[in-house]
Amino acid sequence: MIRNTSGNNGLFIPGPTNIPDQVRQALNVASQDMRAPDFGEFTLPLFRDLKRVFKTESAEVFIFPGSGTAGWEATLTNLFSVGDKVLMSSFGQFSTLWVDMAQRFGLDVEHCKVEWGLGVPFEDYRRILEQDKEHKIKGLFVCHNETATGVTSDIKQVRTILDDLNHPALLCVDAVSSVAAIDFRMDEWGVDAVVTGSQKGLMMPTGLGIVAVSQKAIALRAQATLPRSFLSFDDMMKHNATGHFPYTPATSLLHGLRASLDFLFEEGLENVFDRHWRLAHAVRCGVEAWGLELCAKDPALYSDTVSAIVVPEGFDSGEVLKAAYYRYNLSLGSGLSKVAGKVFRIGHLGNMNEIMVLQALAGAELAMKDCGIQIELGSGVAAAQETFLLNNRVSLKQAA
Amino acid sequence: MIRNTSGNNGLFIPGPTNIPDQVRQALNVASQDMRAPDFGEFTLPLFRDLKRVFKTESAEVFIFPGSGTAGWEATLTNLFSVGDKVLMSSFGQFSTLWVDMAQRFGLDVEHCKVEWGLGVPFEDYRRILEQDKEHKIKGLFVCHNETATGVTSDIKQVRTILDDLNHPALLCVDAVSSVAAIDFRMDEWGVDAVVTGSQKGLMMPTGLGIVAVSQKAIALRAQATLPRSFLSFDDMMKHNATGHFPYTPATSLLHGLRASLDFLFEEGLENVFDRHWRLAHAVRCGVEAWGLELCAKDPALYSDTVSAIVVPEGFDSGEVLKAAYYRYNLSLGSGLSKVAGKVFRIGHLGNMNEIMVLQALAGAELAMKDCGIQIELGSGVAAAQETFLLNNRVSLKQAA
Amino acid sequence: MIRNTSGNNGLFIPGPTNIPDQVRQALNVASQDMRAPDFGEFTLPLFRDLKRVFKTESAEVFIFPGSGTAGWEATLTNLFSVGDKVLMSSFGQFSTLWVDMAQRFGLDVEHCKVEWGLGVPFEDYRRILEQDKEHKIKGLFVCHNETATGVTSDIKQVRTILDDLNHPALLCVDAVSSVAAIDFRMDEWGVDAVVTGSQKGLMMPTGLGIVAVSQKAIALRAQATLPRSFLSFDDMMKHNATGHFPYTPATSLLHGLRASLDFLFEEGLENVFDRHWRLAHAVRCGVEAWGLELCAKDPALYSDTVSAIVVPEGFDSGEVLKAAYYRYNLSLGSGLSKVAGKVFRIGHLGNMNEIMVLQALAGAELAMKDCGIQIELGSGVAAAQETFLLNNRVSLKQAA
Amino acid sequence: MIRNTSGNNGLFIPGPTNIPDQVRQALNVASQDMRAPDFGEFTLPLFRDLKRVFKTESAEVFIFPGSGTAGWEATLTNLFSVGDKVLMSSFGQFSTLWVDMAQRFGLDVEHCKVEWGLGVPFEDYRRILEQDKEHKIKGLFVCHNETATGVTSDIKQVRTILDDLNHPALLCVDAVSSVAAIDFRMDEWGVDAVVTGSQKGLMMPTGLGIVAVSQKAIALRAQATLPRSFLSFDDMMKHNATGHFPYTPATSLLHGLRASLDFLFEEGLENVFDRHWRLAHAVRCGVEAWGLELCAKDPALYSDTVSAIVVPEGFDSGEVLKAAYYRYNLSLGSGLSKVAGKVFRIGHLGNMNEIMVLQALAGAELAMKDCGIQIELGSGVAAAQETFLLNNRVSLKQAA
Repeated sequence: MIRNTSGNNGLFIPGPTNIPDQVRQALNVASQDMRAPDFGEFTLPLFRDLKRVFKTESAEVFIFPGSGTAGWEATLTNLFSVGDKVLMSSFGQFSTLWVDMAQRFGLDVEHCKVEWGLGVPFEDYRRILEQDKEHKIKGLFVCHNETATGVTSDIKQVRTILDDLNHPALLCVDAVSSVAAIDFRMDEWGVDAVVTGSQKGLMMPTGLGIVAVSQKAIALRAQATLPRSFLSFDDMMKHNATGHFPYTPATSLLHGLRASLDFLFEEGLENVFDRHWRLAHAVRCGVEAWGLELCAKDPALYSDTVSAIVVPEGFDSGEVLKAAYYRYNLSLGSGLSKVAGKVFRIGHLGNMNEIMVLQALAGAELAMKDCGIQIELGSGVAAAQETFLLNNRVSLKQAA
Repeated sequence: MIRNTSGNNGLFIPGPTNIPDQVRQALNVASQDMRAPDFGEFTLPLFRDLKRVFKTESAEVFIFPGSGTAGWEATLTNLFSVGDKVLMSSFGQFSTLWVDMAQRFGLDVEHCKVEWGLGVPFEDYRRILEQDKEHKIKGLFVCHNETATGVTSDIKQVRTILDDLNHPALLCVDAVSSVAAIDFRMDEWGVDAVVTGSQKGLMMPTGLGIVAVSQKAIALRAQATLPRSFLSFDDMMKHNATGHFPYTPATSLLHGLRASLDFLFEEGLENVFDRHWRLAHAVRCGVEAWGLELCAKDPALYSDTVSAIVVPEGFDSGEVLKAAYYRYNLSLGSGLSKVAGKVFRIGHLGNMNEIMVLQALAGAELAMKDCGIQIELGSGVAAAQETFLLNNRVSLKQAA
Repeated sequence: MIRNTSGNNGLFIPGPTNIPDQVRQALNVASQDMRAPDFGEFTLPLFRDLKRVFKTESAEVFIFPGSGTAGWEATLTNLFSVGDKVLMSSFGQFSTLWVDMAQRFGLDVEHCKVEWGLGVPFEDYRRILEQDKEHKIKGLFVCHNETATGVTSDIKQVRTILDDLNHPALLCVDAVSSVAAIDFRMDEWGVDAVVTGSQKGLMMPTGLGIVAVSQKAIALRAQATLPRSFLSFDDMMKHNATGHFPYTPATSLLHGLRASLDFLFEEGLENVFDRHWRLAHAVRCGVEAWGLELCAKDPALYSDTVSAIVVPEGFDSGEVLKAAYYRYNLSLGSGLSKVAGKVFRIGHLGNMNEIMVLQALAGAELAMKDCGIQIELGSGVAAAQETFLLNNRVSLKQAA
Repeated sequence: MIRNTSGNNGLFIPGPTNIPDQVRQALNVASQDMRAPDFGEFTLPLFRDLKRVFKTESAEVFIFPGSGTAGWEATLTNLFSVGDKVLMSSFGQFSTLWVDMAQRFGLDVEHCKVEWGLGVPFEDYRRILEQDKEHKIKGLFVCHNETATGVTSDIKQVRTILDDLNHPALLCVDAVSSVAAIDFRMDEWGVDAVVTGSQKGLMMPTGLGIVAVSQKAIALRAQATLPRSFLSFDDMMKHNATGHFPYTPATSLLHGLRASLDFLFEEGLENVFDRHWRLAHAVRCGVEAWGLELCAKDPALYSDTVSAIVVPEGFDSGEVLKAAYYRYNLSLGSGLSKVAGKVFRIGHLGNMNEIMVLQALAGAELAMKDCGIQIELGSGVAAAQETFLLNNRVSLKQAA
């Protein structure tokens, strides 16, 4: 089969996301000398502007050639030591993987296993921290947006718990699939380390793992004894000060990042977040019209970047994905691990708009029908359309 | 407003069409010497492969830096003389423009004015040619696919008329918006000159006007006394023989053409045509479900590359276009000239697939609703989806 | 053989020239609707900025999908009529081709044939115009920069002749290989029509023929009876007023043009001209060091965009070109027509700098040696280097 | 100052190297789903073809999103444990950094400090290994090509020592700046782990760290207790078997890698190596003609990918670099660490040819002169040219 890959490549996975033309153009660049005397004039504003994205004034930002996984690891190895007690929770594939990584690095993980479809277990966190009178727990890990289940947890609540208890544990957040799509307020929420990647809200190819770290955390790094080198904050800071890097950076991606940041700021971050809510809401109304349910158990947890849709009992979501891919050039997200075969996902983040979302719904309807799932053709599309029309009317009224 | 231009740029005009990634990659090329000794190794296969697209064994193919309009002009100035009598018909913006061009060049045009929405007036052509016992009529001009109204005329019928009457007039065809999307059989249909451009079925940027000319027409060019230089067949033939050009060719577009041809042949021309019918049929079913009518008056005339949809009395199609463009990043084709304000067009040619067509329909529904047109949301999408499902079932049955 | 085509593609022909990365990036763009309501916001500034390049306040600028040859033809067919007497001169391949084109279109060409290597024959022009008391001569044609021989003629002198004689003939200039590289002052020199292309000083792919026309000439176009349609000024003006075009424009090239103009203005036009002189001067010193001669007979005629170098008696410049191309990935310009086999050309225009020129000289030395031409290796390079060092010292002195 | 960055960007650093157009085109790709059912059809051949580049039949190949530094770390953390004794040597910036990294990870490094400009201390290695009767030394680390000093060490000699002594230590090689440019024979030389990056001989942007590991080493990984996760061989192997990855891969770079491998194989690896020698030899002859010396102390150590050139006493190589960069758009490699200010480097690897090397020499001559270094202009160019002519004559003779 011949795939149409440009103009419209039917990509609705929760990352890598569609790359805007401005970014594609910027990526198309000749090699250059990363030791050139004026290289810093290009790179230093990248650090500054990423801070705007994370909504932080004071954090250090690190740009690693890698992926979000590298960012997870950097957070662990630069800020913790073997045997450090940390509090983590898992409620999806990615939160589970971070727990696994922490364990591999020898951290003593207090692991709250949560049903998939729920989010960060605030009550458990509060209880455990409350009992930790001696502040043995050095770090608290939370997944802001669990990409596997389409669940967004409220980071502010975690900060409130820490503040209520006056607990000094570092608050480390996986925001890989939320940053630049769902509001993230590092300073306001008192986040000590936040991890993202280039291929999600930043609308770039995969290849950069980006981490922002509070000065409080930075100050603690000398006590952290886990070995690190490629992902060392120290090495980065020494060189980043002048816009350089301890080893060859992925310069073409840095050019893409420049274009991505410009594109985000041109729309305005708050507008970006609003758009993501609007599109996500439309998808959710579509799913409801189909008579299907989301994997996320509670509307308060619904993710604005990805929706995981549960196929009816007796059907295999993997078949839906294959039909979508092979018959309709439509890439939907698969169900991972515990929810394999049970859910398919629609990624609606990054370079995304109303008619793209309608396309995803229309294509998903076809693929589900092909697999025998009884939904009414056009019903999800119509429900999503309704929300857009309503929104337009509201906007017009507001403007009047 | 911020436009998303890659991944999904909502472009559903009947050209320029969406460019496949393979073609975009090929276009991204450094300059090179068009007089290099091995330049012909690159260019000669382009002429050969374009003949496959036109379905001709013997014609000469010309590639001009220009547009389809340049191709029209090349056909007129290389094959005719001032005062030559020619038979033409107009039933849309583009067929009208060719008539106008012929008149500017001093041809004596027998002009059959046909209602917009109809096609080539076969009976008139037959009658006029029948009366032309002395063969004063030197050329017959037909528009294969009138892009303004979404009407495809049957070229074979024109050939049959000529053959029936043993009339030697040259048969010249505007196939700008049909070649490489709707079957075109130059040799079988006895076409003497056919014109296309790069930005339609060939899925490239605008910039090449391409003409294929029968040996019969080529032989007559010496008698044609209209002046020509930039668009001279003679000059081209002298240089093309070795893969060169009389002046600097648009080499980057030639690289795009190479990729486009490869892409078409990989899918297979017949499959390309089938796909265009499938997608066009789905759009037509969608329009019917909306309760609207096509500009084309007869199913036999329906174009597989573009559908012109009549908005209900009292509505302005221009408003639909603006709503589509400004609210939904959706580019639909406008109504031109006589049908301005009355129709909007959905281009469904080139790098196009099922979910793209559904997107166009879903977006058009939104834009129409925004303008107060009473259609049922999702209805057009559902009708189109039905045809795709049916088609899949038929395909599966055929495969069994 | 494997060609290295990026980073350094050894292209030293006088066009198409090397494309700057900024322009390559801009060219890499998805299709868009040329009838979109905001299309003019993109295109109108292009016309405005091209006027800066031509140094005109009042001229009309036309952008045709085509090449410089299309620009030549547009000038002839829009401004003249069959039988119009015009004064032209030929002293190289391109000036000869324009004469040939004028004759094809039925102009009554007073043709001054000049030895190749010389330029516009001012004395002949003055004499002929002086004799033309009745002002039968409607147009004067001059080639600003004859690309085949590397000869630049002084347009101002032609204007002076016309002014001295108070002769109203239109002054039409081929500036294809000079505009945006050698100073061109349309208004100051009273030029009525000037032609260029995208692939020379504008550093773009071939595909745009650009013409600027004085209001005096524009006013006369209604009297000009040569047929034109694709290249009609009238049609263009009607649509250009709102930033649109009478037929589909080559939008991707227009995006390249935007980037090219920005790039030129960033450097500053006067700096661009200075750079071209510096680089050309270095090449000329290199040629002198080789003991070879330029085709241009007089230093006053030396072109700053291309140098045509005469190979010694008994050698074939074609062999030098082949050695350069096949052995060294170096594209030099060939000798055309009368000087075929006798000269090779180094194009030093557009996206060009000191070390590129040194590369061209070093590569040419190798190729000449391979063909048995007795030059001293490194001698041309050293002579050119000397001029750069001197220039640096002068600059430093000026700065001090 | 305005930089010309395409067509010729004057980049002569030892990486990132110039990217061929074929690779640039391939990199210009839309996002795609790395979990698509046919993703493995694209990725599996990459692993297979990288084995051809490393000249191994049986090794496992790993492709990390990262840089060569990530490859170094992967080798250490997957194959060794804290306290493991390893034998390393340093004679330049990069060999030193690997030693430093090993120490950070708690390896017990027997560190042979060698004068910069020399290579792997074979005699020391032999002596130390000979004394290691109990085979406490678990790994032997060597830098194949020290990029800072332009020194290539003979890996085969190290294997011979190990074989002579029947010593089982793993042989780990940093071949970042040699693979795909200088012959590397993993299987023949019995190399257990070899590290490279995408931005050197593979002619790509930075962003991939590539490691090949022998089955002997792979078998030992379970015993290695250093923590690893992002760079885990185990995780990679589990997913790579079907062409997938444990986390999102840098897909656009993988497309570039495909094009790069195709490009290398089209030329032929042995031809690639020959070309690198030819170009390096020319540079060395140029340096000799200048009366300057290489940092590498012995012709047997000369690197075919980079030459480090010692500036005369009293001059600062940093000034040469700045003059090159700011005045001539020429990027030369800087002197690092111990040789900062003392050497500048010409990278001559990857997408490189004769006239590029001549450009580098010509530009370096200018920059040195600007700094007052007394070399004869054109002398280095001429010496290099001589070698190319001689080579051509020899080639012609061989062909006869």
